[in-house]
Amino acid sequence: MRYELYYWPSIQGRGEFVRLALEEAGANYIDVARGDNGGRDSVSKWIYGSRQKTPHFAPPVLKAGNIVVSHAANILQFLGPRLKLAPKSEAGRLWVHGLQLTMTDFIKEVHDTHHPIATSLYYEDQKKEAKQYTKEFLKSRAPKYLGYFEEVLKKNGGKHLVGRSLTYVDLSLFQIVTGLRYAFPKAMKKLEKDIPLSVKLRDAVEKRPRIAAYLASPRRIDFNEGGIFRNYPELEE
Amino acid sequence: MRYELYYWPSIQGRGEFVRLALEEAGANYIDVARGDNGGRDSVSKWIYGSRQKTPHFAPPVLKAGNIVVSHAANILQFLGPRLKLAPKSEAGRLWVHGLQLTMTDFIKEVHDTHHPIATSLYYEDQKKEAKQYTKEFLKSRAPKYLGYFEEVLKKNGGKHLVGRSLTYVDLSLFQIVTGLRYAFPKAMKKLEKDIPLSVKLRDAVEKRPRIAAYLASPRRIDFNEGGIFRNYPELEE
Repeated sequence: MRYELYYWPSIQGRGEFVRLALEEAGANYIDVARGDNGGRDSVSKWIYGSRQKTPHFAPPVLKAGNIVVSHAANILQFLGPRLKLAPKSEAGRLWVHGLQLTMTDFIKEVHDTHHPIATSLYYEDQKKEAKQYTKEFLKSRAPKYLGYFEEVLKKNGGKHLVGRSLTYVDLSLFQIVTGLRYAFPKAMKKLEKDIPLSVKLRDAVEKRPRIAAYLASPRRIDFNEGGIFRNYPELEE
Repeated sequence: MRYELYYWPSIQGRGEFVRLALEEAGANYIDVARGDNGGRDSVSKWIYGSRQKTPHFAPPVLKAGNIVVSHAANILQFLGPRLKLAPKSEAGRLWVHGLQLTMTDFIKEVHDTHHPIATSLYYEDQKKEAKQYTKEFLKSRAPKYLGYFEEVLKKNGGKHLVGRSLTYVDLSLFQIVTGLRYAFPKAMKKLEKDIPLSVKLRDAVEKRPRIAAYLASPRRIDFNEGGIFRNYPELEE
């Protein structure tokens, strides 16, 4: 099976959670919008406004033969068993998907640190509100979410969030901690003191051979200010 | 199977999407927190801060025998095939779940109309920002989401969002349109002109015998200002 991933070509964004799973599994996939015949149009043809009979609201979209799936968490639950990155039992798959959905909620709040009022407005036009939002985010929300995943890790023995081997939520936690470091380096120095197991897991994921190769390759897009995790130093002051 | 739903007892909230599916199917279920031995503590025992080995981040939580699931969309994908409210094929189940996840995103934005800065602050302390947020929400976001579901409905023949019979996303669209009417009656009068199929579906769901009986029963909690859909008239001015 050759998987086709459709996602915006210039950012990590929500597509990155899918890329990490495909890379870790050594899957045969193509990041279509970044290929020779790609670009943003290749993404647009799947979403609302296109001629598709079943248009998706937004990317990422994954095509696997006749199956087309959208929403990063939905794509991951589809790929999980196929890439051996999810538990086999129904209860296990529902649990790992629920954790990913909690990460989805967390990521949306990270996004809102720079766009609290409207996605349609520039950051510069909602900077004051972004500062207020970020203050509460770093004081309450980030510690709550991070503390939650740390607790799940701890109760599961400390090495993995689910079961005894790597699953896609471990990869997603890597991405979240790494992204938060990029966006809020000062705040994370303090916050990381309370989540030693999560930091250890992050480091272990980074060193996995396929992930290390991916991160060092041009396939990994750098963090930038078009994505979810943005470094606006004024926000954490 | 007797299903146990754990959700806050005083609001519709995210639990309502689950209640509607259970009611439509005539399922054997108990809304635990609203029962004699319920209350908020019965919900708290499943979530972060509890002694559970696998604590959930937040309710709703559904218990079905040994399986415990959280996140409304995850619960619905679990219940869907069991309650005959989802397609049977894998592709169909992924599609209907993707639509529900788009609704999840929409509902979060509805919530943020009254809490754009922080959930931990009172509405009164973020009223100015709530007005700004709502303005953009009613101008851009609500029309985009509603227009999307209208388009999916239209391309599927107009009666149901997915397939040829009722699925749980039809029930969720009923709840969203009804909730938006409660929260933004003036704005919805205008917005509904562009979504005739969605309004027709909403009306059809309301008349289904089991849903009608549910809505007329004390089991249906009224919309109120503790929930997602809140009527603050100043917001739509």
